[in-house]
Amino acid sequence: MPRSIRLLFVATTLAFVFVLTSQAAYAADRPNVLLILTDDMGYADISYNGSLQVKTPNIDRIAETGVYFEQAYVTGVVCAPSRCGLVSGRYQQRFGAEHNWNEFGEIYNAEYIGINPNVKVMSEYVKEQGYATAMIGKWHVGESDRMRPEARGFDHAFWMGGNHTYWPTAERNRLKLNGGPVTKIDVPYLTDWWTQDAINWMTKDHGDQPWFIYLGYNTPHTPMQAKEEDLAKYAHIENQRRRTYLAMQDCLDQNIGKIYKTLEETGQLDNTVIIFTNDNGGPCEANASINAPFRGMKSNFLEGGMRVPMMISWPSNIEPGARYHQPVSTLDLLPTILAAIQSPDAPADFDLDAAHPENGLDGVNLFPFFQNKVDADARPHDTLYFRAVFRGTAIRDGDWKLIVTRHDLPFLYNIAEDPQEQNNLLLEMPEKARELKFKLGQWEANLEGTPTFFNSNRWLRGKYRAYEKEYILEQPAP
Amino acid sequence: MPRSIRLLFVATTLAFVFVLTSQAAYAADRPNVLLILTDDMGYADISYNGSLQVKTPNIDRIAETGVYFEQAYVTGVVCAPSRCGLVSGRYQQRFGAEHNWNEFGEIYNAEYIGINPNVKVMSEYVKEQGYATAMIGKWHVGESDRMRPEARGFDHAFWMGGNHTYWPTAERNRLKLNGGPVTKIDVPYLTDWWTQDAINWMTKDHGDQPWFIYLGYNTPHTPMQAKEEDLAKYAHIENQRRRTYLAMQDCLDQNIGKIYKTLEETGQLDNTVIIFTNDNGGPCEANASINAPFRGMKSNFLEGGMRVPMMISWPSNIEPGARYHQPVSTLDLLPTILAAIQSPDAPADFDLDAAHPENGLDGVNLFPFFQNKVDADARPHDTLYFRAVFRGTAIRDGDWKLIVTRHDLPFLYNIAEDPQEQNNLLLEMPEKARELKFKLGQWEANLEGTPTFFNSNRWLRGKYRAYEKEYILEQPAP
Repeated sequence: MPRSIRLLFVATTLAFVFVLTSQAAYAADRPNVLLILTDDMGYADISYNGSLQVKTPNIDRIAETGVYFEQAYVTGVVCAPSRCGLVSGRYQQRFGAEHNWNEFGEIYNAEYIGINPNVKVMSEYVKEQGYATAMIGKWHVGESDRMRPEARGFDHAFWMGGNHTYWPTAERNRLKLNGGPVTKIDVPYLTDWWTQDAINWMTKDHGDQPWFIYLGYNTPHTPMQAKEEDLAKYAHIENQRRRTYLAMQDCLDQNIGKIYKTLEETGQLDNTVIIFTNDNGGPCEANASINAPFRGMKSNFLEGGMRVPMMISWPSNIEPGARYHQPVSTLDLLPTILAAIQSPDAPADFDLDAAHPENGLDGVNLFPFFQNKVDADARPHDTLYFRAVFRGTAIRDGDWKLIVTRHDLPFLYNIAEDPQEQNNLLLEMPEKARELKFKLGQWEANLEGTPTFFNSNRWLRGKYRAYEKEYILEQPAP
Repeated sequence: MPRSIRLLFVATTLAFVFVLTSQAAYAADRPNVLLILTDDMGYADISYNGSLQVKTPNIDRIAETGVYFEQAYVTGVVCAPSRCGLVSGRYQQRFGAEHNWNEFGEIYNAEYIGINPNVKVMSEYVKEQGYATAMIGKWHVGESDRMRPEARGFDHAFWMGGNHTYWPTAERNRLKLNGGPVTKIDVPYLTDWWTQDAINWMTKDHGDQPWFIYLGYNTPHTPMQAKEEDLAKYAHIENQRRRTYLAMQDCLDQNIGKIYKTLEETGQLDNTVIIFTNDNGGPCEANASINAPFRGMKSNFLEGGMRVPMMISWPSNIEPGARYHQPVSTLDLLPTILAAIQSPDAPADFDLDAAHPENGLDGVNLFPFFQNKVDADARPHDTLYFRAVFRGTAIRDGDWKLIVTRHDLPFLYNIAEDPQEQNNLLLEMPEKARELKFKLGQWEANLEGTPTFFNSNRWLRGKYRAYEKEYILEQPAP
C-alpha cells in the first residue's frame, strides 16, 4: 500500500470514528421536539386559562412546568394562513398564502395552492439538523406532489388536508400515509389515532437521531363528533354543541396525558421540548368555543380571533411556572426550535441569523426573552402585522392596536389598558391611528407577494399641479 | 298537394316575406354604433375640456354635436378591470376581474385570466340584435380560446392584448386578426391602422345589417411613440415625453377626423351613435398626461384617477350641445347602446330589464336621463362603488365620496363643493364617513366574486359574552 493511500485510509477511519462519536454526543444532548397545534380551540377552554367547565390537567401541565406566553398571536385568523406562518417562520402574505384557498374556488393554479416549495419550512430546517421528523395530523398547507409533507422534510407523514370526520372508515377517508391512501383503520376515533401514531414514532428506534413531531390535532374543529364515554361526562351541559365541544376537548386532554405517560415511561420527558398552541381564535358559533376574556372570534382581528394560548415546556432547560408578558408570535416558534436544537458545540450567543442567512425569518428566538437574558422591557417584536386582504388588516404596535375592517372606520385600542377592546380611540387620537395605518401600509407595500407598485402614497402629492403649471399654462397649443 | 301542405307553404312564404320586409325596415331605422375608447388619456388633454396645448376638434365635435357627461366614472382605475366593467355592464369584481392580471404573475389559472365566458358581453348582446360586429384595437379582457374577441360575438376582430408598440413589423408583433397572427403590415403606425380597419368595416357591404364597432385605441398609452410629422407640430414643447404625448393625441384626433369624413361621405353620420370615452385617468408620470382640474391619476381613486371624458352623439336622435351633470358610469354604456338599437317596434317605455331578464346589469339606460324624460334631480346612480382590493376602495354616494387607501385613514370629500378633493372631512363628519364605509362594506360583502362569509360585521356583536354567561358561569365542570 503506498504511503499516500495508507495515510488517506487512516484519515478516513479517524474521521468516521469522530463522526460516530460526535453523533452520539449530539443525540444525548439534543432534545426531542413535540409541537402540538390544536384547531379552532377557544382561548378560555383550558382550565389553565380559567375554564370552569372543562378540566385540562395535561395541557395545563405544559404551562405549569414551562413558560406560558400571555400575549401570543397567530399570523392568520383562519387555518391555512396561520399554519403557513407557523411552519415557515415568515409572514405568509410574503408568499401569497393569505386566505384559505378553498374560499376562492378554482381561480388559483393548483401548483400555487400551498406553501411554495421555494419557501423553506420548519421540518426541512429540523431534518437538516439530523432529526427524525414526523408530520401527524392536519397539514393544510399544500397537497400537491411538491407541497405535501412527504415532500417537505418529513420522514414519516400520517396526515389530512383541511377538514375531516373523526370517524373515518376504510372506504371513506381522505387520510394520507407516507405518500399513499389509508385503507385500514387502526384506531376508530381520529384524535386517538393521531396520538397513537405519535406515540409509535416517539418510541420507535431512531438510532442516534433525536425526533421532531409536528402533531396537528384537528380537534376541536368541526364536525362536532365526540366519543360516547366523553359525552357522558358532560350530560349536564344543556347546549348540545357545547356539550360535544367539551367532550372533544376533554378527549384531547386525555390524549396529551397519554403522551406524557409515554415520555415518562421511556425516560424522554426531561429532554423533550413540548410546545402547545392553537391555530386561531375559536369560531364561537361553529363549534361553541369561548374566547373569554377577549372579544371576537376566528376570522376577525379582535384579540379573540388572533390571541391564542401558547406554552413551552422543557424540564431540563426551562424553569417551571414562568409567564412571559410581552407580545410574541407563532412566527417565533421556528427560530425558537432552531435555537433549542442547535448543535451542542454552538456558542452561548449562537446567532441564528448568521447560522441561517438564507432565512429572512420574521420570527425571533424567544429563549433570551423568557429566560430574562435581555432587558425586561425589550420586546421580541415592537410591531406585528396582520392581513387577510378581503377581510381586513391589523397592526399591533407597542401597546397600540389598529384594526381595519370592511364595514366601518378603523378601530384604535390600547391593548395594555383595554385588552377587551371596548374603547375605540380613533376620534380621540386620529394622529396615532394615522401613524399606525401608515406603518401598516408600508409593511403591505413591501410584501413580496403584493405587487410593489400598489403604493397609494403618491396620490397624496397632488402631482397634476406641477404639470399644469409647466405644460398647460406656459406652453400653449401650436 | 294536400290542403295542409299547401297551407303550410303559404304560411311559410308569408312569414319569409314578412321577415325580409321587417329586416329591411330594421336596417333603415336602426343606428350603427361606434364605441371609441382611448387608453390612459388625461382628462384635460382635449380642447373641449380646456387644453391650451392640443387642439382636438374632432373629439370635441362628438361632444358639441351630442351630449357631454360632466361626471362620468370608470369602474376600474387601470386598463383591464375598467374594460371588464364597460363591456359587461357589470361591476367587474363580480366575476373576479379586479386587477390587471399580469400584476400577479402566474398565480391565476389561465382559464380565469379574462372575462369568464358565462358573463355576457356587449358584442354578444349587439350581435344577437342582428348587428355586424367588429372589435378593432385593444381588447385586454382575455386572450384564451374562450375569451378572445373571436369567441365573444365579434364577426371581425383585429386586436391586441394589453400593450403594444405603435410601429409593428411583420416579424415582431403581437397583433391578432380573425383568429390568427398578423404577418403583413398594412399601415405603419398603429393608431392609423386601427382607423383604417374601422373605416374598412364601416364601408363594407353588410347587407341589411347595421354595424357595431368597438374601436379601442391604445393611444395615448405608453410606449411613447409618435410620427415625425406630428412631433414637428410640438417642437416648442420642452419636455420630450409631453411633446410625444401631444403628438400622439393630435394624431388620435386626426384619425377621428378621418372617421367623420367617411361617415359623412357614405351618408351614415346621421344615424350613427358615436360614443367616446377613456379607460381611466391619465398616469401623469408614465405618459405625461394631465388630469386637471382634478387631483390624482390612473391607479388611485381620486377624481383624476377615475373621472373620464364621456360623450355620445347621434345626430338624428340627440340634440346637440347638451351637458349632463349627474354622475354616470361606463357601466351605463351597454344598456344605453341596447336602448338605442332596440327593435323599432319596441314600445316607447321599452323596459330593458324585462327584455333582458338574464342581465343583472349594474348599468342603466342613460337616454331618459340626459333627454330630460325623468325628474331633473333623478340620478342614474345614487351610489357608485369602486374597489381594487390591494389598492383600496371608494364610494360615491350622492355628492359624497369616501376613499379608503392603504397608508392613511379614509378620506371624505363633498364632490359637489370640493371636486378637487382638497378638504378631507373625516374628522369633522365621522358619522357620514361611517355611513359610507358601511355601505361600501355591504356592497363588498355581496359581490359574487368575494366569498360571502367575509363579513366583518359579526365581530361587532361581542358574541362571547352570551357564551360566557350561559356556559361558563352557570354550568361548571363535572
